[in-house]
Amino acid sequence: MFEARVTITLKKGVSDPEGANTLKALHLLGFDNVRAAKTIRTFDILIDGKDKNSVKKEVEQMCQRLLTNPVIHNYDIEVEEE
Amino acid sequence: MFEARVTITLKKGVSDPEGANTLKALHLLGFDNVRAAKTIRTFDILIDGKDKNSVKKEVEQMCQRLLTNPVIHNYDIEVEEE
Repeated sequence: MFEARVTITLKKGVSDPEGANTLKALHLLGFDNVRAAKTIRTFDILIDGKDKNSVKKEVEQMCQRLLTNPVIHNYDIEVEEE
Repeated sequence: MFEARVTITLKKGVSDPEGANTLKALHLLGFDNVRAAKTIRTFDILIDGKDKNSVKKEVEQMCQRLLTNPVIHNYDIEVEEE
């Protein structure tokens, strides 16, 4: 069994309304020294497989077909054996 | 300037509908060897401060007041100097 962690960030220049609203809310609460807030989505996927490499390739497929939008997202995959 | 990364996971027993739907969709796409899918929210916060410790305490406050819901979330804070 392997655990794959997919970290999805927004590409440079893509707006992050949730991050922007979080920043605004933090300022309203008095946290004035906050300069920026960014959101990141992560999926932890438990998966059966032969070896790290084949699992990584399969998770790459999942990213392309379901988990990410190549127009706005960058992603990073880390695989660990359990 | 410091960068604080807040990683927010769901407490054990709390349902994760997005993870469940992701798992269902991956199965529908033919990724039958996926056993589980969990979602994690992360905030990257850029913040001015004196030292790591005081920044961490302040981010802890942000978590309690805005970023997390103590009933359903666990969170973890990592602070790095930039």
